[in-house]
Amino acid sequence: MRLSLSITALALAIAASSAFAADKQTTIPQTAVAQVPQLREQALASDLGWKITESLTTEVGARLPGTEADARAVEWAVAKFKELGYDKVWTEPVTFPKWVRRSESGEVLGAHAQHLVLTALGGSPGGTVETEVVRFADLAALQAAPEGSLAGKIAFVDYQMKKTQDGSDYRHGGGIRGRGPTVASSKGASAFLMRSAGTASHRVAHTGGTRFADGVKPIPSAALSLPDADQLARLVKLGPTKVRIALDVGFDGEYTSQNVIGEITGSSRPDEVVLIGGHLDSWDHGTGAIDDAAGIGITMAAAALIKPLKPARTLRVVAFANEEQGLFGGRAYADKYFKDVARHHIAAESDFGAGRIYAFDSSAPAYAKPAVEQIAKALAPLGIEYTPGEGGPESDIGPLAARGMAWGSLSHDGTDYFDLHHNADDTLDKIDPKVLAQNVAAYTVFTWLAAQSDGDFGSAPKAAEPRGGE
Amino acid sequence: MRLSLSITALALAIAASSAFAADKQTTIPQTAVAQVPQLREQALASDLGWKITESLTTEVGARLPGTEADARAVEWAVAKFKELGYDKVWTEPVTFPKWVRRSESGEVLGAHAQHLVLTALGGSPGGTVETEVVRFADLAALQAAPEGSLAGKIAFVDYQMKKTQDGSDYRHGGGIRGRGPTVASSKGASAFLMRSAGTASHRVAHTGGTRFADGVKPIPSAALSLPDADQLARLVKLGPTKVRIALDVGFDGEYTSQNVIGEITGSSRPDEVVLIGGHLDSWDHGTGAIDDAAGIGITMAAAALIKPLKPARTLRVVAFANEEQGLFGGRAYADKYFKDVARHHIAAESDFGAGRIYAFDSSAPAYAKPAVEQIAKALAPLGIEYTPGEGGPESDIGPLAARGMAWGSLSHDGTDYFDLHHNADDTLDKIDPKVLAQNVAAYTVFTWLAAQSDGDFGSAPKAAEPRGGE
Repeated sequence: MRLSLSITALALAIAASSAFAADKQTTIPQTAVAQVPQLREQALASDLGWKITESLTTEVGARLPGTEADARAVEWAVAKFKELGYDKVWTEPVTFPKWVRRSESGEVLGAHAQHLVLTALGGSPGGTVETEVVRFADLAALQAAPEGSLAGKIAFVDYQMKKTQDGSDYRHGGGIRGRGPTVASSKGASAFLMRSAGTASHRVAHTGGTRFADGVKPIPSAALSLPDADQLARLVKLGPTKVRIALDVGFDGEYTSQNVIGEITGSSRPDEVVLIGGHLDSWDHGTGAIDDAAGIGITMAAAALIKPLKPARTLRVVAFANEEQGLFGGRAYADKYFKDVARHHIAAESDFGAGRIYAFDSSAPAYAKPAVEQIAKALAPLGIEYTPGEGGPESDIGPLAARGMAWGSLSHDGTDYFDLHHNADDTLDKIDPKVLAQNVAAYTVFTWLAAQSDGDFGSAPKAAEPRGGE
Repeated sequence: MRLSLSITALALAIAASSAFAADKQTTIPQTAVAQVPQLREQALASDLGWKITESLTTEVGARLPGTEADARAVEWAVAKFKELGYDKVWTEPVTFPKWVRRSESGEVLGAHAQHLVLTALGGSPGGTVETEVVRFADLAALQAAPEGSLAGKIAFVDYQMKKTQDGSDYRHGGGIRGRGPTVASSKGASAFLMRSAGTASHRVAHTGGTRFADGVKPIPSAALSLPDADQLARLVKLGPTKVRIALDVGFDGEYTSQNVIGEITGSSRPDEVVLIGGHLDSWDHGTGAIDDAAGIGITMAAAALIKPLKPARTLRVVAFANEEQGLFGGRAYADKYFKDVARHHIAAESDFGAGRIYAFDSSAPAYAKPAVEQIAKALAPLGIEYTPGEGGPESDIGPLAARGMAWGSLSHDGTDYFDLHHNADDTLDKIDPKVLAQNVAAYTVFTWLAAQSDGDFGSAPKAAEPRGGE
């Protein structure tokens, strides 16, 4: 009964939306567009984004979800929003399984005994394994191994990620990390090793989350630094090679962190929200500078820089909790706000580092194209190209975007992103303050114009998505 | 009595040498020069140097003096010389205090609690220190601190080494490492921290030896990675900063390693030796690829490539033991052979990485200038410039050079050397096989022509040096 009612309501909504689609058009008032040059230049000249990023990475440092530093990061974000003059600041709980890393080590045994630099994958169980290594060139090769053929062995997937501007080869690197341990375990392996999903040959291993499929026995899983993967591949070529992996890691109960939210209240449409943000947590080896203190710095600064212009709509900046271990913050946000999708005017997240922003796209429908093109034109002086069909919603806004929230994308150049991603080298010195200012300028322009638009960008509940409460 | 005899003998020797100096001239026969182009091209096309370097770094890995891997490296070198067809292969004992590294860690305490990447300096005692950090911009600033002013504090010297082609700023970086701990201790400090003597901002700390002056209490001493030094400097600027350093390291008895020597016997002057080589040991974090497996690979390959030409003089390649902790191998060699200085026709060591060789120089006196210029001309097609007065003997041949052995220098471009020096990033992938082949070609040309010269390069016992046995 409720279901049938719901479908009827939905059909009506779709019909209504189609009826209006031909007529309505979203545009941005010229008064708002006229303010862009000054706003853009002001953002380019400002070091606010840098100062925020420096503060988070220095004063808190690494922010592994569930650690004492996670709690300090939440306190930091609340204090920083207030210090920046946000009108409303609050937190919303995000609960997740707590995964801890106490120690980890690897070594080659026998005639070529030597240390290996590796790091446990997030979600790996602890354990010590001493056995022979079997190398696979990629995930497909591992998948092709006969069932049971890896019994008592360590599966080593040695795929080298390629550098690309859009980071697209992460689908391979990240795919191995996500699915490799499950495949290895299902074939009887005692442990899983991979060449880090990374692109720079420094002796720092790239961590990141994995997840074992239901019914598969979790096995100790780790990533080698690129030079160590080279070394292990050479040793395996010389002959049978035994390795010892000792991981003291694993899940340890639950933890409740917080999404931290700061708002600048809209002057004329306070109930409509332009959402921007990044994630507050990080992996533990670096200080999470490009992943994702930069996203926090960029978006906290952008809204603060817009504030004196009294934006029409509310600017909401979200510092999401625990993105790294499974989008927990983004999913909690979506669970809380999916009924309010239509009030989320448009959203954009910065979670792909601090490289130059080079491309803009949006999910906006045809009737909002005039506004999208006005934004694109305002971004062009920053060296940003309008690339329809090439963008997508970043991590934490994904769950609500899947439920119908409109998104904009401001794509960072990711050529060097996987040099630093999830490893110890992700530190403040890797960010160029001038490039970060360009990032802030891009978010400032986008957010300001989106907040001033006449008409919407297409946010509407999506029929295709399950709706928890109904 | 013996002393006075010795001085008389020396005076006679000097007089004799002066009498001949005006007449004699060292040159290289045209038949030898004529063989250079083919030898040079053959070396450039050969991967022998690479294969040797790959073998040492892969099969042995890191080779900290006194470890099980040190012994394996000695075995490896003996076997490799034999495999390459050297006529004589032997070892000579080198004894030194054994220094061990078991574990090391650093962390900031208090409100900004976070992990610090650091590494103990070789020669540091173990110990755990938890106290406030006092930052100094350089060694001079530390030296200027009032006596006793550092009581109960950690002295942190934050000097950033500069990149140069000749690596000359290592005199600052290495100077801080060598003398900083002594200065800090003498002013009452509980521990010593320094910004690594390095030039790349990866989160790998650069180790290296230090030595406490007599009468000064050894204190735990470590180097921070560059990003960690940046971080600590920022934290100290924010306010009083406490750090915990825990080093489980220290001296543990004596160890006897070996200089490993391979010879290709001279066809007409077997008693005269052209000595080339590198050092076999390495620090423990990397696999000692540029420091100094490359030197071993370059010189082992060079003599092997010359062998078919039946050189007139004996080619002696020395893989020196424990260079890193105080030139132990080079000093043992000099102690054993100082009476044979005149038989050491000329020597050259490769211990400055595997960058392109760009400069050539020699200690040869004026009468040998024609031969030196012939060598320089033969090196020029490799892009090597003759730079009189700018070279010097590398590490391990220094002690015997100080006692009068003539030397040649083939200077590697060291611009990026201190990106990798003494840290975990010193791995095989950092060596360009083509550039390494240029290095081998340079050593091949130099060694061949030196072995064929008519006349000497000025090797003669030096009056100014103390002579241990007399």
